[in-house]
Amino acid sequence: MNSLPHSPDDLLALDPAAQDLLFRAAHTAHTFTDEPVTEEQIEAVHRLVRWAPTAVNGQPLRGVLVRSEQARERLLPHLSPKNQEKTRRAPLVAVLAADLDFHEELDRLVPFLPGASALFADQAVRRQVAVHNAYLQIAYLTIGVRAAGLAAGPMGGFDAPAVTKEFFPDGAHEALVVMNIGRPGPDAFHPRAPRLEFAEVFSTV
Amino acid sequence: MNSLPHSPDDLLALDPAAQDLLFRAAHTAHTFTDEPVTEEQIEAVHRLVRWAPTAVNGQPLRGVLVRSEQARERLLPHLSPKNQEKTRRAPLVAVLAADLDFHEELDRLVPFLPGASALFADQAVRRQVAVHNAYLQIAYLTIGVRAAGLAAGPMGGFDAPAVTKEFFPDGAHEALVVMNIGRPGPDAFHPRAPRLEFAEVFSTV
Repeated sequence: MNSLPHSPDDLLALDPAAQDLLFRAAHTAHTFTDEPVTEEQIEAVHRLVRWAPTAVNGQPLRGVLVRSEQARERLLPHLSPKNQEKTRRAPLVAVLAADLDFHEELDRLVPFLPGASALFADQAVRRQVAVHNAYLQIAYLTIGVRAAGLAAGPMGGFDAPAVTKEFFPDGAHEALVVMNIGRPGPDAFHPRAPRLEFAEVFSTV
Repeated sequence: MNSLPHSPDDLLALDPAAQDLLFRAAHTAHTFTDEPVTEEQIEAVHRLVRWAPTAVNGQPLRGVLVRSEQARERLLPHLSPKNQEKTRRAPLVAVLAADLDFHEELDRLVPFLPGASALFADQAVRRQVAVHNAYLQIAYLTIGVRAAGLAAGPMGGFDAPAVTKEFFPDGAHEALVVMNIGRPGPDAFHPRAPRLEFAEVFSTV
């Protein structure tokens, strides 16, 4: 593992070990060990990160956990060449998608907002809210995978329409990210790439 | 604060106090105390969460920290009525946006991928990548605000084109979320709304 780019931050309430686990020592992994990732581990990650916020509590993220060799072979041809090899060897691969009909669950998810699903009657608006909030949840999931002591390798380099058709054939989902999950293997991490400074990201008015 | 919906999870490497701080005991806040949120606190949050991954390390999130009363008065009319009052009283308000020209920084951010910015020559593709990855970063920021012991109140209920024009007038940004930040005040939290179960979100193949 690379050396830590900064020491833990006294202005934060989160303890230094957790800062390292989730952000500072964590890297996107490009190789993995053979150690399996169990269904129970992913369920524990879900139980943690599901509490994080989404618009109107809509929770549009859906995922297919690719475990069988048969399912993996259905996925691999749709990945960019450079992503194929690492995905072939990852203990677990998750295909992460937005449920474009997430509004159908709103009566149950926001019982205090009766009729909330009508806010999303427009299909274009609904699709946008689904995709944007699924991305929020993909970020929460990435942090959650790290909270389980695992490494995540989220990838955007794939044929999204083909993967959607293969793993979410109902026409009501949109595949967004393929994520490899496992324990980091040898040379798992690329050197840390530069990050923007505070003053480049935020201004104050 | 509400009681915790679940006890800490032994399958996770993250310590139970951190699980609570970031996810389980954390809620979207609707009221805040008067305690100021300093520039140094937000900078510490940034220094932590900037290490989380984005596509091609593009880091498209930009933010305006609304501190002056004058700036706040420019923001409030564009929020939904129910969001106006809580935003009026939040110690700090951040307007979070995607930099639609994030690709201009890629020579610096991915020096190992020369010419990466050419991947984003198409404006529609670039806008989509900018917005999607800014949402990832908004989620990281939400977790980071909680890591600082603060509560976040992210809101989508506002006139996004008007807020973009007011706070990012260069035409190269898109406002996505307005986030109140501070210490939770009296009755800050709504009751915990239901979350989807593991089997409703994930299937295994």
